[in-house]
Amino acid sequence: MTIRININADMAEGFGDYDIGNDTALLEIVKTANIACGMHGGDPGIMREVAQRAAEKGMSIGAHPGFDDLWGFGRRQIDMKVDDLEYLVAYQIGAMQAMASYANLEVSHVKAHGALNNMACVRADYADAIARAVKAVDASLIHLVMPGTEMERATQDIGLSLAREAFVDRTYEDDGTLTPRKIEGSVIRDADVAAERVVKMVTEQAIIARSGKKLDISFDSLCVHGDEAGAVEVARRSRRALEVADVEIVPLPQMLGSVRINPE
Amino acid sequence: MTIRININADMAEGFGDYDIGNDTALLEIVKTANIACGMHGGDPGIMREVAQRAAEKGMSIGAHPGFDDLWGFGRRQIDMKVDDLEYLVAYQIGAMQAMASYANLEVSHVKAHGALNNMACVRADYADAIARAVKAVDASLIHLVMPGTEMERATQDIGLSLAREAFVDRTYEDDGTLTPRKIEGSVIRDADVAAERVVKMVTEQAIIARSGKKLDISFDSLCVHGDEAGAVEVARRSRRALEVADVEIVPLPQMLGSVRINPE
Amino acid sequence: MTIRININADMAEGFGDYDIGNDTALLEIVKTANIACGMHGGDPGIMREVAQRAAEKGMSIGAHPGFDDLWGFGRRQIDMKVDDLEYLVAYQIGAMQAMASYANLEVSHVKAHGALNNMACVRADYADAIARAVKAVDASLIHLVMPGTEMERATQDIGLSLAREAFVDRTYEDDGTLTPRKIEGSVIRDADVAAERVVKMVTEQAIIARSGKKLDISFDSLCVHGDEAGAVEVARRSRRALEVADVEIVPLPQMLGSVRINPE
Amino acid sequence: MTIRININADMAEGFGDYDIGNDTALLEIVKTANIACGMHGGDPGIMREVAQRAAEKGMSIGAHPGFDDLWGFGRRQIDMKVDDLEYLVAYQIGAMQAMASYANLEVSHVKAHGALNNMACVRADYADAIARAVKAVDASLIHLVMPGTEMERATQDIGLSLAREAFVDRTYEDDGTLTPRKIEGSVIRDADVAAERVVKMVTEQAIIARSGKKLDISFDSLCVHGDEAGAVEVARRSRRALEVADVEIVPLPQMLGSVRINPE
Repeated sequence: MTIRININADMAEGFGDYDIGNDTALLEIVKTANIACGMHGGDPGIMREVAQRAAEKGMSIGAHPGFDDLWGFGRRQIDMKVDDLEYLVAYQIGAMQAMASYANLEVSHVKAHGALNNMACVRADYADAIARAVKAVDASLIHLVMPGTEMERATQDIGLSLAREAFVDRTYEDDGTLTPRKIEGSVIRDADVAAERVVKMVTEQAIIARSGKKLDISFDSLCVHGDEAGAVEVARRSRRALEVADVEIVPLPQMLGSVRINPE
Repeated sequence: MTIRININADMAEGFGDYDIGNDTALLEIVKTANIACGMHGGDPGIMREVAQRAAEKGMSIGAHPGFDDLWGFGRRQIDMKVDDLEYLVAYQIGAMQAMASYANLEVSHVKAHGALNNMACVRADYADAIARAVKAVDASLIHLVMPGTEMERATQDIGLSLAREAFVDRTYEDDGTLTPRKIEGSVIRDADVAAERVVKMVTEQAIIARSGKKLDISFDSLCVHGDEAGAVEVARRSRRALEVADVEIVPLPQMLGSVRINPE
Repeated sequence: MTIRININADMAEGFGDYDIGNDTALLEIVKTANIACGMHGGDPGIMREVAQRAAEKGMSIGAHPGFDDLWGFGRRQIDMKVDDLEYLVAYQIGAMQAMASYANLEVSHVKAHGALNNMACVRADYADAIARAVKAVDASLIHLVMPGTEMERATQDIGLSLAREAFVDRTYEDDGTLTPRKIEGSVIRDADVAAERVVKMVTEQAIIARSGKKLDISFDSLCVHGDEAGAVEVARRSRRALEVADVEIVPLPQMLGSVRINPE
Repeated sequence: MTIRININADMAEGFGDYDIGNDTALLEIVKTANIACGMHGGDPGIMREVAQRAAEKGMSIGAHPGFDDLWGFGRRQIDMKVDDLEYLVAYQIGAMQAMASYANLEVSHVKAHGALNNMACVRADYADAIARAVKAVDASLIHLVMPGTEMERATQDIGLSLAREAFVDRTYEDDGTLTPRKIEGSVIRDADVAAERVVKMVTEQAIIARSGKKLDISFDSLCVHGDEAGAVEVARRSRRALEVADVEIVPLPQMLGSVRINPE
């Protein structure tokens, strides 16, 4: 049986005349775009454009809501009322759905951005607020989260479809957390090393820690980055290595409709 | 047969700690709320709240998109690329739909705000862009416009449901345009005068100019204002006078599904 | 010898068409305005206008910088790079100086707003960043802070002129901290109670805790609020009671040039 | 006697994580930076950084205020109340002065950006408002404008120091206006052609139209662009050609203190 996996990346993070990231390169690599929704990045025009290009490539798309913080690119932690947070997320999902309608493409998932995601991985109230927002806008949306976090817990508690992601260019500790960035080697910049590891994780259907330990953590999607040329190369080679290993790269919804990797 | 009319007002124009308008008073007067969508006013929380309160009152709601101009409250004319304008409008409609989902209420119409509306009444490219945005997001949306304008023309050209509005507190010229504000008496501040005129217009099913001439211009909705205490009183008495005259005040969608006033 | 004290309040916190607070009432009560600088509230027009009105009243003015957070009115804690924070504060001080130039009035002090102030009272890095910003823009500016905090420490470390404030409508614990808001009675809403306590504190030249203990904490300024009618009344009566007690109400710079209350 | 000329460019137009333009290249070419002030581009950090780098290069700097329009990069024409416009400009000048204080560098001029500049070249009310703002903040500031416009007229009327600029990469008509962009050849992209023309204009001390006619229009500064690689090369070669022709490139204030080119 063919093994399948999804690959996702954050896209459409420019704003007006400001360009950022490597959307054009990523469109050849990933099968799922997390589209910025105008708060930490993105504007209505680029949201529509990336949705259109994703549709042409047979990709799936998701809303990628962030804090209302363009200057900080959504990377500043903001302590806001939980209701405000919930409605801010819902607002962005709705805006994304509108822009996707131009491409006749359904928004199929939601993935939180940057500091919002980081905070919600550890703060139950934030995670619950995001899950409520997703459910309120469209209960059929998939919530793409990092396994082992409050986001996973909240998604399951509220009964949303859950997809888990693993990072192509980050190492893991034995407890399933990411190795802190300050530790040497925590970010994998060697494309060959990354590609080899990714193939192993996908074919063994589990996250593998930097200790070599195979963790009992499944995932549906591989997250790649486009911020720098190096990250794009890591993504490109990982994809090629998966194809060479006969892994099929599919849009996110096909992962949840199909036999799950490492099913629970 | 009972005559029906809709009454609409702009609402939810506050932002964060900033309060503006008279939403609570208007909720007792109108049957349709045009809800600001976060650009010229409004934030996700107030959008949700007014949608909820409108639902409880059996009202219909619409997206009320404006320029991205909080400082100017959407009253500054902005000359932007027509594509940017179109996507800006679509974005706001989608955001409004998301917030309305909390109230299990469909967004049933769109009405442009302030300078955006004013410009689009006379600029064909802006009017067409707004009409395209409405259609792209949801082709079943009603477009609420001022009759005799590019907005009406664009709405008909693209094949959207059209609703026309007349102003309770503004006088009209014989050609169907509003009397310019600089002319004495163009804004009706006497609630009794307004109420009497409104009843006459609704029962005679036509706009009546300040010359007394009955114009061949139909309308589906009366627009009232909540900016000042005086405007609210004009709205309140107009509504009461209509009820006394046995006119039924209905949500906007019921106007288009029913026998139209002054049908064409 | 006449006892002197300053009274300060946050002002100019509206934005465009949005009005908030009670600037007109406060202009009759205080001698020093902390003027919002366009980030958490305030726009160039209202900054200029309040500076002008303050000049006409013989008041002193200060820049009142806050987080770049209009939606949250500067009350959301934001964790940003310390350099970004420093430059954000400097930017606002400069903008305020420009608007004050219309009134031929010098900006004589800086007081941080809301969550920025709260965070900097306990975070040394934030306090130091704010102090550096003040010094970089104009080393002769007075820094108005709450005594016993990192803000006071940072101001002294960097060698800026320091002014301390006490709250007219908040009670204190024996250690000089504010009684938490959740404790009954921590916010003084009875204008007579507030006025009596204020006169006692000013004439005894020390903060008095709710236990009745006289603390060894001096202050140069009394902070009053204008958010609600009740707060304005507390401010008004406090001022009147001080005048009855022959206390002279002076602009902030006169406090530091004169014999200090409770000199150390 | 050595002929002198200034070269200026718009800089610091990035925002947060967004980079734009070619500041590093331009710092080697120009002697004067027009620094974006946080509205159409620029943030407090980049404003400070470019001021610092300009100081290290012996350059002069100016505030480069624009409309409050980050999405449109200040290129959308906005019709706002003239008072709002004036205070918006003053606000930005003050903010720039604050950021320049970090580099111990005086802001020596103001040059309006994009659509604001374009509108003010033809609208007397906008030009007067900008001139009033400059004068209110610091009457010793130089106003850098395009000759033959309402901006020049307003600057002279109000009595500010005036500097005129000519474009290195745009051709002129016989009446001194820029050749419209839609006309082939109106933008000079050939660096050799530009360099030759610039040397001729500077040594003959007059703008030369594309007809070859020598116009009776003096200028103090050459404006170069950094938006694209081609524009930077045009700027670089123009500077080199001027040096080869023994023209001295000086900061803007030295142009007005010295014998003026083509004095009137």
